[in-house]
Amino acid sequence: MDLTVDADRLRDDIEATAAFGDIDAVEGRGRTVLAGTEANRRARGYLLDRMDDAGLDVTVDAVGNVAGTWTPDSADPDAAAVAAGSHLDSVPEGGIFDGPLGVYSALEAVRTMQEAGVSPDRPVVVVSFTEEEGQRFADGLLGSSVAVGDRTVEEALALTDDEGVALDAALEDIGFRGEGRLDAGEWDAFYELHVEQDTTLEEAGVPVGVVTTITGITHLDVEIRGEANHAGATHMRDRTDALAAAAEVVLDVETAANEVVDASSDSAVGTVGSLDVSPNATNVVPGRVDAGIDIRDIEYESMETVVDAVRDTLGRIEDERGVATEFARPFDLEPTPMAERLREAAHRAGDDAGIETLDLHSGAAHDTMHVADVTDASLLFAPSRDGISHNPREWTDWDDCAAATRVLAGAFADAAGVEET
Amino acid sequence: MDLTVDADRLRDDIEATAAFGDIDAVEGRGRTVLAGTEANRRARGYLLDRMDDAGLDVTVDAVGNVAGTWTPDSADPDAAAVAAGSHLDSVPEGGIFDGPLGVYSALEAVRTMQEAGVSPDRPVVVVSFTEEEGQRFADGLLGSSVAVGDRTVEEALALTDDEGVALDAALEDIGFRGEGRLDAGEWDAFYELHVEQDTTLEEAGVPVGVVTTITGITHLDVEIRGEANHAGATHMRDRTDALAAAAEVVLDVETAANEVVDASSDSAVGTVGSLDVSPNATNVVPGRVDAGIDIRDIEYESMETVVDAVRDTLGRIEDERGVATEFARPFDLEPTPMAERLREAAHRAGDDAGIETLDLHSGAAHDTMHVADVTDASLLFAPSRDGISHNPREWTDWDDCAAATRVLAGAFADAAGVEET
Repeated sequence: MDLTVDADRLRDDIEATAAFGDIDAVEGRGRTVLAGTEANRRARGYLLDRMDDAGLDVTVDAVGNVAGTWTPDSADPDAAAVAAGSHLDSVPEGGIFDGPLGVYSALEAVRTMQEAGVSPDRPVVVVSFTEEEGQRFADGLLGSSVAVGDRTVEEALALTDDEGVALDAALEDIGFRGEGRLDAGEWDAFYELHVEQDTTLEEAGVPVGVVTTITGITHLDVEIRGEANHAGATHMRDRTDALAAAAEVVLDVETAANEVVDASSDSAVGTVGSLDVSPNATNVVPGRVDAGIDIRDIEYESMETVVDAVRDTLGRIEDERGVATEFARPFDLEPTPMAERLREAAHRAGDDAGIETLDLHSGAAHDTMHVADVTDASLLFAPSRDGISHNPREWTDWDDCAAATRVLAGAFADAAGVEET
Repeated sequence: MDLTVDADRLRDDIEATAAFGDIDAVEGRGRTVLAGTEANRRARGYLLDRMDDAGLDVTVDAVGNVAGTWTPDSADPDAAAVAAGSHLDSVPEGGIFDGPLGVYSALEAVRTMQEAGVSPDRPVVVVSFTEEEGQRFADGLLGSSVAVGDRTVEEALALTDDEGVALDAALEDIGFRGEGRLDAGEWDAFYELHVEQDTTLEEAGVPVGVVTTITGITHLDVEIRGEANHAGATHMRDRTDALAAAAEVVLDVETAANEVVDASSDSAVGTVGSLDVSPNATNVVPGRVDAGIDIRDIEYESMETVVDAVRDTLGRIEDERGVATEFARPFDLEPTPMAERLREAAHRAGDDAGIETLDLHSGAAHDTMHVADVTDASLLFAPSRDGISHNPREWTDWDDCAAATRVLAGAFADAAGVEET
């Protein structure tokens, strides 16, 4: 079947979306689109217009998840739908592809199917989840967490931002506090196309990646308490320097992750991403450090190896430096394998269109990770220049956007029951 | 001569001062007295009343330095005066002894001399310098920097706080924007009694320390730039982690200072006191770290050894980790030896009164450091319980306050030309 996508139409939609919340960037093109803001309202409004243009039946659920459904005559309206999509929100000063590519490639896939005159057996849904980035109300993946039942509508609506504004009020404010709950468990399959945020595809010169597994993620909160004291009047031997102790943790996390990479799992990563020093004055020996640690891999066991290394280091610095430490694990998700039938469909779609595809893993979390808990799900990647994301320098060539969308369209149509013609 | 001080009167003055800007502390007694605030006005007003009671001739200079002069009949009014004092301001939530002990011990020494009927050859001055702590308008030692000519009156008055309020206006506001400039260069000698802020005296069980040298101080600002990137999507081998690089600097500063302590100079200290990570999110590889480093010793050469170690580490992390680094040295003061004749007078005063004294160095900066640039100066210490300062838990036993004040009185009288009777 001819599912050649309209590359210009796709680009127009992404560029139109890039204008909402756009920022002056020194280099590249950036935008700030936090959930429930005016920029988010405009991005959502534009999507609703495009869904209308495509004749989709649009719903907005209570937490603002948007779904546009195409139920062609060929489809059984009661059959479980197939869905594809992503999100429209961004991190502060983020890029223009992270999210919008997934939403508009899904819409473009539907328009392409419509124009190709194919006959799906199932309804086809384009989805935009609320607050994927978690920059205002939550840790991330908020809309999809509700859609899979991990969090209730009530819990989500009650979440507040730093100023105490609830998601409920913010959505009401922009006219996107809908009703009911989008239920991803009702879908037969879900696809998401996203930018890779790494360089595997770029280095291989391949335009489309098919994710095998989304890595597990553990977050550790580590608190190290020493004794704040005068930097001049306190002898070296009389110190309990919380920052010097924390520096050992930082280096040990790096070493432990590198050792796992060398020994067993190339995809393991360990990062001390945040470090807050108190009182944080040049002339005061640090009395307390709070560190945020991120550990990921496609093998849960290798994540545990890094976690164990952190525990070992905390024990050692307590013994050797006399600091007190606290260890918490506020977030822990096991690795999520993607559905084999959908992965195979994606590779077939690439073969059909003469577009090369590549198996890889995802180091980042995506809404698909939640959806995979309730139905078959698949994540596709388009290349990211230099692997940069969450940054105005994030970039995916328009040709790659089109090629990846073509593969998505083929796989999506396959999942919807479109027969080869 | 009998220079027995009135320990209760001294304590009353320190406790009265402790009430201005007092805070609710979980443990100990704290106060917040920033320069030019209402609490500072009240502390200054109380001092002026006590100086009046003692019959001192009070002046307030343009930057708010207060001087109360006793010119007994025995003194040549044109002779260079001898002075003693300290400061009344505190750090936020600081202790009650740091500063006030030095001001009121000087006043108590004068009152004791008056009551003992001694006959100084020179005028005797009690001093309170403005903004020693540098918590509102400057890096610290502001009033004394003007009194020794390091900074002009105009420069000092133009300094602004975080809200844009100038020192000029703040002093005017509390009625302590005086005229002229207190000139420390006109003094024949200067004494300051201060809390030790370390445990040398406490551990030795000696109530009075005589400082040999105030350490030199170097501050380094180090900037380390790596590449911010997604903590999940960026392979370990593809990272340029600014925080992991900074952790090496933190540990190398500690190691270098310890090596100097072991090899040559026991008093050397090196501290990474502040560390600001950007973007400082758990799930982002740190892209930039700014570190504030404090290096001190009584030997300038050993300070340089630690500075050189920092330079070496920066070169190594550039080579090995690919980070870019910047190195600045915004503050550099060489060690300041105290005047031998005044130190000897302090030891003699201790001997006369049967109070043990001990030579030690000062790791902290004090107004005396400035004054020593223009005249003979000497710094005395009273014990600090557990070495704690800049904290409501700062404590010096009242008996130790009195003993140290007795030694100050003897040394001060000696410097003023009082003959043994």
